[in-house]
Amino acid sequence: MSQSTNQSWGGRFNEPTDAFVERFTASVGFDQRLAQHDIRGSIAHATMLARVGVLDDAERDAIIDGLNDIAQEIEADTFPWSISLEDVHMNIEARLTEKIGIVGKKLHTGRSRNDQIATDIRLFLRDEIDAIEAELVRLREGLIELAANHADTIMPGFTHLQSAQPVTFGHHLLAWQEMVARDHERLLDCRKRVNVMPLGAAALAGTTYPIDRHVSTELLGFDRPAENSLDAVSDRDFAIEFTAFASTLLMHLSRMSEELVLWTSAQFDFIDLPDRFCTGSSIMPQKKNPDVPELVRGKTGRVYGHLMSLLTLMKSQPLAYNKDNQEDKEPLFDTLDTVKGSLRAFADMIPAVEAKADNMYAAARRGFSTATDLADYLVRKGVAFRDAHEIVGQSVAHGIRHDKDLSEMSLDELQQFSDTVEADVFDILTLEGSVAARNHIGGTAPDQVRAAAQRARDALATMTRQET
Amino acid sequence: MSQSTNQSWGGRFNEPTDAFVERFTASVGFDQRLAQHDIRGSIAHATMLARVGVLDDAERDAIIDGLNDIAQEIEADTFPWSISLEDVHMNIEARLTEKIGIVGKKLHTGRSRNDQIATDIRLFLRDEIDAIEAELVRLREGLIELAANHADTIMPGFTHLQSAQPVTFGHHLLAWQEMVARDHERLLDCRKRVNVMPLGAAALAGTTYPIDRHVSTELLGFDRPAENSLDAVSDRDFAIEFTAFASTLLMHLSRMSEELVLWTSAQFDFIDLPDRFCTGSSIMPQKKNPDVPELVRGKTGRVYGHLMSLLTLMKSQPLAYNKDNQEDKEPLFDTLDTVKGSLRAFADMIPAVEAKADNMYAAARRGFSTATDLADYLVRKGVAFRDAHEIVGQSVAHGIRHDKDLSEMSLDELQQFSDTVEADVFDILTLEGSVAARNHIGGTAPDQVRAAAQRARDALATMTRQET
Amino acid sequence: MSQSTNQSWGGRFNEPTDAFVERFTASVGFDQRLAQHDIRGSIAHATMLARVGVLDDAERDAIIDGLNDIAQEIEADTFPWSISLEDVHMNIEARLTEKIGIVGKKLHTGRSRNDQIATDIRLFLRDEIDAIEAELVRLREGLIELAANHADTIMPGFTHLQSAQPVTFGHHLLAWQEMVARDHERLLDCRKRVNVMPLGAAALAGTTYPIDRHVSTELLGFDRPAENSLDAVSDRDFAIEFTAFASTLLMHLSRMSEELVLWTSAQFDFIDLPDRFCTGSSIMPQKKNPDVPELVRGKTGRVYGHLMSLLTLMKSQPLAYNKDNQEDKEPLFDTLDTVKGSLRAFADMIPAVEAKADNMYAAARRGFSTATDLADYLVRKGVAFRDAHEIVGQSVAHGIRHDKDLSEMSLDELQQFSDTVEADVFDILTLEGSVAARNHIGGTAPDQVRAAAQRARDALATMTRQET
Amino acid sequence: MSQSTNQSWGGRFNEPTDAFVERFTASVGFDQRLAQHDIRGSIAHATMLARVGVLDDAERDAIIDGLNDIAQEIEADTFPWSISLEDVHMNIEARLTEKIGIVGKKLHTGRSRNDQIATDIRLFLRDEIDAIEAELVRLREGLIELAANHADTIMPGFTHLQSAQPVTFGHHLLAWQEMVARDHERLLDCRKRVNVMPLGAAALAGTTYPIDRHVSTELLGFDRPAENSLDAVSDRDFAIEFTAFASTLLMHLSRMSEELVLWTSAQFDFIDLPDRFCTGSSIMPQKKNPDVPELVRGKTGRVYGHLMSLLTLMKSQPLAYNKDNQEDKEPLFDTLDTVKGSLRAFADMIPAVEAKADNMYAAARRGFSTATDLADYLVRKGVAFRDAHEIVGQSVAHGIRHDKDLSEMSLDELQQFSDTVEADVFDILTLEGSVAARNHIGGTAPDQVRAAAQRARDALATMTRQET
Repeated sequence: MSQSTNQSWGGRFNEPTDAFVERFTASVGFDQRLAQHDIRGSIAHATMLARVGVLDDAERDAIIDGLNDIAQEIEADTFPWSISLEDVHMNIEARLTEKIGIVGKKLHTGRSRNDQIATDIRLFLRDEIDAIEAELVRLREGLIELAANHADTIMPGFTHLQSAQPVTFGHHLLAWQEMVARDHERLLDCRKRVNVMPLGAAALAGTTYPIDRHVSTELLGFDRPAENSLDAVSDRDFAIEFTAFASTLLMHLSRMSEELVLWTSAQFDFIDLPDRFCTGSSIMPQKKNPDVPELVRGKTGRVYGHLMSLLTLMKSQPLAYNKDNQEDKEPLFDTLDTVKGSLRAFADMIPAVEAKADNMYAAARRGFSTATDLADYLVRKGVAFRDAHEIVGQSVAHGIRHDKDLSEMSLDELQQFSDTVEADVFDILTLEGSVAARNHIGGTAPDQVRAAAQRARDALATMTRQET
Repeated sequence: MSQSTNQSWGGRFNEPTDAFVERFTASVGFDQRLAQHDIRGSIAHATMLARVGVLDDAERDAIIDGLNDIAQEIEADTFPWSISLEDVHMNIEARLTEKIGIVGKKLHTGRSRNDQIATDIRLFLRDEIDAIEAELVRLREGLIELAANHADTIMPGFTHLQSAQPVTFGHHLLAWQEMVARDHERLLDCRKRVNVMPLGAAALAGTTYPIDRHVSTELLGFDRPAENSLDAVSDRDFAIEFTAFASTLLMHLSRMSEELVLWTSAQFDFIDLPDRFCTGSSIMPQKKNPDVPELVRGKTGRVYGHLMSLLTLMKSQPLAYNKDNQEDKEPLFDTLDTVKGSLRAFADMIPAVEAKADNMYAAARRGFSTATDLADYLVRKGVAFRDAHEIVGQSVAHGIRHDKDLSEMSLDELQQFSDTVEADVFDILTLEGSVAARNHIGGTAPDQVRAAAQRARDALATMTRQET
Repeated sequence: MSQSTNQSWGGRFNEPTDAFVERFTASVGFDQRLAQHDIRGSIAHATMLARVGVLDDAERDAIIDGLNDIAQEIEADTFPWSISLEDVHMNIEARLTEKIGIVGKKLHTGRSRNDQIATDIRLFLRDEIDAIEAELVRLREGLIELAANHADTIMPGFTHLQSAQPVTFGHHLLAWQEMVARDHERLLDCRKRVNVMPLGAAALAGTTYPIDRHVSTELLGFDRPAENSLDAVSDRDFAIEFTAFASTLLMHLSRMSEELVLWTSAQFDFIDLPDRFCTGSSIMPQKKNPDVPELVRGKTGRVYGHLMSLLTLMKSQPLAYNKDNQEDKEPLFDTLDTVKGSLRAFADMIPAVEAKADNMYAAARRGFSTATDLADYLVRKGVAFRDAHEIVGQSVAHGIRHDKDLSEMSLDELQQFSDTVEADVFDILTLEGSVAARNHIGGTAPDQVRAAAQRARDALATMTRQET
Repeated sequence: MSQSTNQSWGGRFNEPTDAFVERFTASVGFDQRLAQHDIRGSIAHATMLARVGVLDDAERDAIIDGLNDIAQEIEADTFPWSISLEDVHMNIEARLTEKIGIVGKKLHTGRSRNDQIATDIRLFLRDEIDAIEAELVRLREGLIELAANHADTIMPGFTHLQSAQPVTFGHHLLAWQEMVARDHERLLDCRKRVNVMPLGAAALAGTTYPIDRHVSTELLGFDRPAENSLDAVSDRDFAIEFTAFASTLLMHLSRMSEELVLWTSAQFDFIDLPDRFCTGSSIMPQKKNPDVPELVRGKTGRVYGHLMSLLTLMKSQPLAYNKDNQEDKEPLFDTLDTVKGSLRAFADMIPAVEAKADNMYAAARRGFSTATDLADYLVRKGVAFRDAHEIVGQSVAHGIRHDKDLSEMSLDELQQFSDTVEADVFDILTLEGSVAARNHIGGTAPDQVRAAAQRARDALATMTRQET
């Protein structure tokens, strides 16, 4: 008989759980990570039960003292976790009864493991979201300040990885900042839907005890109680929404990583990453590898996979709770760890990126990056844009044949393709002129970059201020 | 030479595009769907160019008239689409020049296909979101009203697909309503991030023309111009976020579908779906298959797949635009069609669901669904919950052996397991008593269900009112 | 300076690795699982180096003895793992040098961690595949024998979860067996591509030492050396192919799980699962939940997620090795554990499934499941199939209105819809008659099921014999 | 009444299908692509029915003539497709009856749309696999010949996108060839499991007619009949396995694409892609974008998405056929089109890739790519490998400080770090020496590359010969 171990549900059963099945179905190996939040939820539940008269004050105090003791045991890593007690809830409850006797069994009045686990995950995830937000803010700050410092640093802008038009490095960094600013917004939108309280849903239908869910809501800092008990125990949208946020964030970090890897290659050589963010090779003594961006790029798939895992998990599940849902925790936990680690690594690394401004500048001078400026020049002289495009295309073809950039051609050479070209053309063929001319909100002109950095600082300050 | 066809970029090229490559890389086969939004964007762009003096009023008017003509041709399906003109933009521009001559070429001043396509998708998606919201509201209304009508209809509540506790059908339907209410919120959060204007980003760096992006923003009903040109042309977050919304929505519809399919089976037989939502078999004359929920359940994977497709697409892309991004449209379009069709089917079908209340009630009487009520009864008489659980477990084991539900046992039989049981126990073993006792916010008691339906109506009214 | 810790690549570096970066990029936390295979590969490498004269015999013996010592330390869990030594390879090499002095450093001659890790994973995965195959065989055997025992047990066959035609339970089980038989084939196809040897590829280009790759191939039991060094260090196809196998397998197990869960519900009640494969509820004393199939169904998404993770990981990676690849191990390891656990649980559980034959039979009598037989009867009497279908459809509509199955109608009633019906019709309206009539290879007739079970036994025997 | 349209199953129904539901559930919009294979299967079915006496010869001939007529109508695009006839099967059958009268209704004897569609997809997919194999062979040939031509062309080999060791371009191309050679094997393994015949499974349980499934198997060129009718109508493994093959193939093409894009950048400038595989910019006249590799890279996510879609589709489906399965076709069709198009584009493009050998050589001279050779040199002089690594690491650090490659240092400079270095060191610091020294199977030495190309030619010839 299994009663000795599975005290929570033995009465109806004729044979104990198979030993392998016990291990296979136990969750305590990973859900013990929720222990402190489980205790926090239990303390609130006991407090509420006493408030409505289901527990007397002495019972409540015994339970809370017992739980606080257990919290310390867990903190000190002296808690005797047991696989045969299935999960974090039964482990803690069994220990509580061991400590305070029969009154410990009263804690589970008016609740079930179904609403308990839903509450634990939400409390846990809310704390993690707040920690993640702090790293995200640090990364945004790092990007904004680096961008402000490089408002005048010219580099080639690429489309299709081909030189397109000169831009400033600051402008490029602010594009990255925009990506993570959207992630920041999405994180806060997600948090609203995390911060809802399931307790009181009990197994699936609510409870017959005279509970007051508003009390528990307030004690635990939730915004409101969940509206429907069946939904409350079966809803895992918040885990999916968080993982979707994380997938987009990691996608953004993978894009930055790709560029950091490109830029540290011998062929680009646009930046230097300090040695402390790199590692070497066991066989090739000259190697200095951009491990951090490579690894973060590699971790993108990991988070995408977890999103797919959670979506698949929930597909076609009938109401209310099914055992399948036990599989929600590991993907979520690993997503949280991956996000926190990756953000921390980036928030540390970005301020340490050293631009090699001379290399960037030299690269921007190659590849006919001012060709659009020449076309625009022709348009201002009255040529229709499509015709100007054709003229410049022919000039570039000439340049390729003779290995000359546009600014290196003589006036005669340029006039071969259009007699509209005059001596003043050379002013607009400089990189500085090209960049400065894109002088509107969102454009790459140094003044615009400085203004954009300031707006970004202000927006970030507003976002973080609103929360406090 | 390829000029005759690809007038947009031929000048630099020595040989025409390979015929297969031309077809393989052309997007006009699918992006012509954006034609009306492309024209709307072009009219705003021309208006803005005239406002800042880049076009004169006559040029502007010629362009706008030409575009309006083209819009009618497209509407009437007389527009001569050409694959060799690559995409929707070049098709329309070529047609415009054909119609109004050289001035048509001036429309492309100060913009690029990169910011143009980003604008088109956002305008298109915004309209689609609004249409989707309308269906979502209709579904929510249907669920709320059906729930209100069934606040007293008792059915078995399940966990692990095993009878757990009696609930009301109305309560179950409101659980579904909560799911889609969250989807509604997420849709509106997503819309905020869709409604941002890329025009002016040009190819990647902004433009040298004296554009006024606030004018275009206002003309097109956007909330604000995009902050950074590099980001504006390369950002596809909004498509991912929408598809993540859609994945969660379809996941919810798959859960409802699963239950509808179960409930129409001969084994459950809880509901009837009208013939018009079902189909038959070509070989088995007796069959009436719940095709609509089955098909919607099947479409879930389709949307998950598109989400994975878009996330993979964007992974590791360096700034700014890359040709990869052409692959963003088909997954997004198919997601939109799938969401609209599935929502419409559900919004039509839900009000037509007929509950077989007698079958539901009979099923709720089987499977010891009031066992928890008996345990709670014992607790109220002073037994600790965990001990009460054990007593009831043994009573159930006895019931299974003798094929008797708890309410069918004699007082003597029940007292075998605990002498705390008294004659009043039979009051709490009724389904009505069980359901009515879960009488708190979120619980299944009929009064709570009615109140919850009213709160849902109010919340929905508030959401839809805020938008107008 | 970091030499003290990262002895493998310190010389070129000016500052030590950042402490967080060291932890973030270290893999020893998970790749230590490969330790025994790493040692097996190193012993073969040392043996080969001695064979070609790069090591002398004394050096070889010292290295092999040292590695065997370390293998025992790891086995006994006394090995001093260090995070600052990055990975399993450096941990073992550092320990080897500690034990046997400077000669330990010679082991890494002619190889790199890049070909070493590729070899380790392949050796490890090959062993795991063999263990998985053993469980798969056990599951196939269980299904075949249970099917053979139930060749005559009649149940309703479903399409669209609606009663369709009667089938035998044995036939249904053999459908499951066919699914996993295909998985078995795919596993063996995958194994062929796993069993290829990377050693000798070194960092990426091969090595300047006079190695003999055929020697290492033979010592390690590989089929052949990898053909190309760049491919050898960067190829992770085998991990993807294995995870694709695993995804299809888990998909199949999820389908079986879904049916097991349905069949244990009170509404179907077709089978009993022994208590040892089920668990109960902490709050509802009557519950007996089919945890094992539910949990396996839930694990499906986990494996799908890992497949997506690995595919995303490898997308767009330039040759040869990139740090991203460190992320290949955790998804693969977790897939292996999930597959092994799920298969073991099913292989244990399937032989213990108890069919409730009476319930199955009673269910098959409901739902007009012999309607197709009636149509076929009419066709044999000369009615065109499509017309017969229409006649039976009308008879069924009549049956629904009057709550009568076809076999319960009088001859007069049946003749209302077609005067072709005669008294002999009642013979074909029995379940036994219906089932026995589907008497061709692949059909559900009991004799066919017995023959199919025998063919399945033979096919399995052939597959497992071929390997030895 | 719906009989007028849905002749296949109207009899039991009281109201016609809802007009929107009819459109929403109809599949003829996409499954008409299977029409020719549907007809091929029907002709074989009719032939078999006549062989066993269910049809007489005149009936058989009328049916076959009618079907051949219809095949021509479809070919000529004059076939009157109708949405209200649901799918390709009912459209063809209705047309057949229109043409040949009542005997047309006999064709459906002994089969169902469930086994019919399973047969159609398998026939269709088998043909597509053969067409795909032809493109794959063409790509492999192109890679092998280009590799053979560049067995001596030296380029930098990269790990972590950092210069690692010199390799030959031919060696690099053969790494690509190895990837697609594995894909080729997987395609043929998949084809074995596609080529199995479902006909005879009928709706789910087999049929009561005296069919001979071996006849149909032979007529349609299948390897064997499917073993189990329930499995035969519900199995979609083959679509998943094909899409998994396609995902790995596209992953490989994405890796090649990434490198082609890198190599055409101004920063790498290793190759030239002919203009016919590139496109330009509508705004930047100088641009020549590597559209084909970019687009193929972008299509990778599309195929991954379809794999996820199909896996999700099949998850947890109970036996046998469910309407969900209608969703299997579009992902499969789009995967086939994507694979064929991408392979064709690559097979056309690869032979046209022009290596810029001088740029490759110059790049290989930068980045200390012979550092490993120096370490190996020291080892040959008796230094332990790990110490040699440290010495070279310090030499490289010196080189970075003074901007000198190893081959540019004087003997004195090199001896600073180890007095083991002698004058002969300069021989091994050349690129040619480095490459030639990796002279073992799988290594980058030119002779090895030529031998590997020859083995690849032979292996390919063997694979393609086996099939015929």
